[in-house]
Amino acid sequence: MLQSKGYGATSADDALHHLDFQRRDPGPHDVQIQIRYCGVCHSDLHTVRNEWGNTVYPVVPGHEIVGRVVAVGNHVTRHKIDDIVGVGCMVDSCQRCDACGIGLEQYCENGFVGTYNGEEMHTGGMTYGGYSDSIVVHEKFVLRVPDKLDPAAAAPLLCAGITTYSPLRHWKVGPGQKVGVVGLGGLGHMGIKLAHAMGAQVVLFTTSPNKREDGLRLGADEVVVSKDAEAMARHQNSFDFILNTVAAPHSLDAFLVLLKREGTMTLVGAPATPHPSPQVFNLIMKRRHLAGSLIGGIAETQEMLDFCAEHGIVSDIEMIRMDQINEAYERMLKSDVKYRFVIDMATLA
Amino acid sequence: MLQSKGYGATSADDALHHLDFQRRDPGPHDVQIQIRYCGVCHSDLHTVRNEWGNTVYPVVPGHEIVGRVVAVGNHVTRHKIDDIVGVGCMVDSCQRCDACGIGLEQYCENGFVGTYNGEEMHTGGMTYGGYSDSIVVHEKFVLRVPDKLDPAAAAPLLCAGITTYSPLRHWKVGPGQKVGVVGLGGLGHMGIKLAHAMGAQVVLFTTSPNKREDGLRLGADEVVVSKDAEAMARHQNSFDFILNTVAAPHSLDAFLVLLKREGTMTLVGAPATPHPSPQVFNLIMKRRHLAGSLIGGIAETQEMLDFCAEHGIVSDIEMIRMDQINEAYERMLKSDVKYRFVIDMATLA
Repeated sequence: MLQSKGYGATSADDALHHLDFQRRDPGPHDVQIQIRYCGVCHSDLHTVRNEWGNTVYPVVPGHEIVGRVVAVGNHVTRHKIDDIVGVGCMVDSCQRCDACGIGLEQYCENGFVGTYNGEEMHTGGMTYGGYSDSIVVHEKFVLRVPDKLDPAAAAPLLCAGITTYSPLRHWKVGPGQKVGVVGLGGLGHMGIKLAHAMGAQVVLFTTSPNKREDGLRLGADEVVVSKDAEAMARHQNSFDFILNTVAAPHSLDAFLVLLKREGTMTLVGAPATPHPSPQVFNLIMKRRHLAGSLIGGIAETQEMLDFCAEHGIVSDIEMIRMDQINEAYERMLKSDVKYRFVIDMATLA
Repeated sequence: MLQSKGYGATSADDALHHLDFQRRDPGPHDVQIQIRYCGVCHSDLHTVRNEWGNTVYPVVPGHEIVGRVVAVGNHVTRHKIDDIVGVGCMVDSCQRCDACGIGLEQYCENGFVGTYNGEEMHTGGMTYGGYSDSIVVHEKFVLRVPDKLDPAAAAPLLCAGITTYSPLRHWKVGPGQKVGVVGLGGLGHMGIKLAHAMGAQVVLFTTSPNKREDGLRLGADEVVVSKDAEAMARHQNSFDFILNTVAAPHSLDAFLVLLKREGTMTLVGAPATPHPSPQVFNLIMKRRHLAGSLIGGIAETQEMLDFCAEHGIVSDIEMIRMDQINEAYERMLKSDVKYRFVIDMATLA
């Protein structure tokens, strides 16, 4: 077994702290990665504090991983030593079901293996994430990080990036379309950059008037304060697509009525308690859709990284040391981050 | 003006009673129809009792109309005297917007004119519906009723039929697909017949075990009692499409989890109070859709009538006399009808 060092929690009340643990030795199809950067996702915090009720302790979070290949198995063909690579939210899936067959591993009918707090397919134990010095992953779940991308700022692309890129692509966002992004956080700021790069007219909806300038800087054509009823009314029936990144319970109706006939609003954040129930009339009257979307497949994640390299897109990040993680969680809860914390894993030692 | 007789209400507390009123004289593009049959839709009752808060009295309900052409304007080309024709939920729309331009008058951006309780475009007054001896309608909103269809049993096709046909077509229901129909009432029984005729595998969901036999007779391949948790669990992740016809507030989650990846559940009933809020996870985990659909366009309504003629489909009806309408409303509230009341308008006089 491979000895790993990391930061983890041993109970829901626990602060994150140093943790030594074991990973499987690299098999013939595995890539061993020395982790250099790991983004901090809100899911990390949910899991550490067992807010979804499914955490197995000890847990080592982190699924926005960028690092350097330090070992490869005999049969690995996709990656070689010294490559800069990434790992996102998944490290395995059944590879047999229809979904896996068409590159939608995130919808694997047998359940994909999460990068942390997932059931390891080889050892029978749990998976441990990227708040760590190293990780061992099947080559199929390892992404090439293009040279053009700053590796630290690319880390959040592996979750925040693909979670917004996938629905924008699936619902065919492009030139001539008017696209809304609800919420300016880790996901929202990527949504704006990506939708803008895809050629759409982008409108950011935020509850904070002081985010206007940043929204425009990130690529929004317009910023609407969603509490401003008049401004909202001006946009009624005008959007082709709305990407809703807000997990806090809020009125979906306020945004559904902004969709054109046959428009879709896609939710990528899951609230702990449900949103107020949407009015059925708002769906019926314009044949509108409410949908959800989960991260993205592996091939699509590679496509997203290549798209970001082509368009010069990375995440806006604030680099932290490993020992600042608990403080970073508190700041994340107050939305006091622009727009993603990334841990410099060199600070682990 | 054209003198008309009918049945209407003069206040929300009023029973329906004889009412004399005036319609416009047929203009150059109008068709005057002697009404022979009119179906009884739940919307009629909602409007009569002002349950949607928008009723203008006096109101004459009825939007499932079949009758005989008795006069046509100079410029009418589509219909001639003695034709058997139908009128559904709409009698006009702007004819200028994008939606009207592609035959989606039901989503007219300037609002279609309802067959009753709508603002008449020509007189500035209100429209009066089919609980009446005659009606005057622009030829574009008049449908040909194929000879093969029994005219009385065809009347409910004009609302219940098209409301279920349109979403089944829009979401491309056909052979090889597994389709759910939620609720066995006026809409649900049409949904089963139509989805079956389109070649889909049809499963009826009902709360009433005693509707099983009827569901199978109407064309369902299987009937599932939705309170039976085990039976429901067996159908998880298996439906391409679910047509939900139930307007009473109920758990949408119970059906959303039955959809395959990327499946859609479409609501065609609008509850007076919202459904319990659906779990966002159920949308996210399989990229599922929740949508709504409103009746259907005029061309599509004609297509539906022709489809029904081809497949020998009409509504299951119980014929009533005009003076039985108040009793029929009470029975409708108790779901004591298989599956649509139709008024024999010869009984008006």
